[in-house]
Amino acid sequence: MRMRKKKHRNERIENCGEIVIREPFPKGKWNTVFGNENKICLEIGCGKGRFITETAKNNPDVNFIAIEKNMDVALLAMEKAQALGLENIRFICDNADLLEEIVLPGECSRIYINFCDPWHKTKHAKRRLTHRRYIEVYKKLLPAGGEIYFKTDNKKLFEFSLNEFCDMNIKLKNISLDLHAKPCEWNVMTEYEQQFSEQGMPIYRLEAVFE
Amino acid sequence: MRMRKKKHRNERIENCGEIVIREPFPKGKWNTVFGNENKICLEIGCGKGRFITETAKNNPDVNFIAIEKNMDVALLAMEKAQALGLENIRFICDNADLLEEIVLPGECSRIYINFCDPWHKTKHAKRRLTHRRYIEVYKKLLPAGGEIYFKTDNKKLFEFSLNEFCDMNIKLKNISLDLHAKPCEWNVMTEYEQQFSEQGMPIYRLEAVFE
Repeated sequence: MRMRKKKHRNERIENCGEIVIREPFPKGKWNTVFGNENKICLEIGCGKGRFITETAKNNPDVNFIAIEKNMDVALLAMEKAQALGLENIRFICDNADLLEEIVLPGECSRIYINFCDPWHKTKHAKRRLTHRRYIEVYKKLLPAGGEIYFKTDNKKLFEFSLNEFCDMNIKLKNISLDLHAKPCEWNVMTEYEQQFSEQGMPIYRLEAVFE
Repeated sequence: MRMRKKKHRNERIENCGEIVIREPFPKGKWNTVFGNENKICLEIGCGKGRFITETAKNNPDVNFIAIEKNMDVALLAMEKAQALGLENIRFICDNADLLEEIVLPGECSRIYINFCDPWHKTKHAKRRLTHRRYIEVYKKLLPAGGEIYFKTDNKKLFEFSLNEFCDMNIKLKNISLDLHAKPCEWNVMTEYEQQFSEQGMPIYRLEAVFE
């Protein structure tokens, strides 16, 4: 469902001030942007931002870059971060295809992909964020030991993703076919995740570790 | 559900003749037993034998060793093979823990594990045929490129197995979270599989490739 265009969207984004990062992106200079040498994590498709703002709040010694191409949705995430007064998060309203324009290899050590579009038609498989063409990019950008943390409610996308990572010889760990079957206090839920898991739908999750 | 003891079981096993292999096992001499140099595949827990007899029938240029510890069940598998006049299959009524007594490293190049006991209690995890202590044995016995073909209807066992193989750095491929969602003419169904998939339960499958 497409979100209706937010009223006064551009002014509201303006009001979020420095947490919104525009082109040219500070590729290679994120430490200067955040004003420290802390580890950097990135979320592709942060949606309304519940996951990334909560994670940023829980981890003040880690920096977070949140990417969301839908400006109306991204606005809500930015306003959440602003309301919480978070200093360790920045937002980019753009497409994940620009990843190599955003960070240098080794600059970011973990990428979160939560409930991304499954692109269910085979002819659109290339658009899935776990397609091997994206995995190639993650491989270029992540340092040794860098990780992808991936969650979805879509079984077919998860099956596809398992096979893509395995075919690309990326090590997997902590694979879950029903994340909420056991208590997992450490897990930060996205808006979608809460909705789906409350409906009793299983949530799939994996961690991919790059060499 | 435990199968009732078959009447005249031992005589009926006797009647199956040379397809039943007893101790001492012809470890290292299976080519002599089969009378050819063909590739050897092995099934751990062949049950009533539908899968292994059908697979043996479809692949006359491959040899098959079927292991089943329950003699009453194994008998049915043997009688199936005998009725089909299969010459490329042998049966061992014993425990999978004896695997290293049965074949030499490199002697068998594929192991099938179909719908094995999930041993759902955590304290019994070591008994699962995809526990790392078994994977260690498969690793010793399989040659480079040797494979495990694993199917189950048990989601938790499949999740456990994915993690065990990944933790042991075994390459996975052709992972399926719902085998029958797409047509798969190549797939030979076990008795269990037919029953479960007819009830609409997903069948999980993976291939593990050893280096």
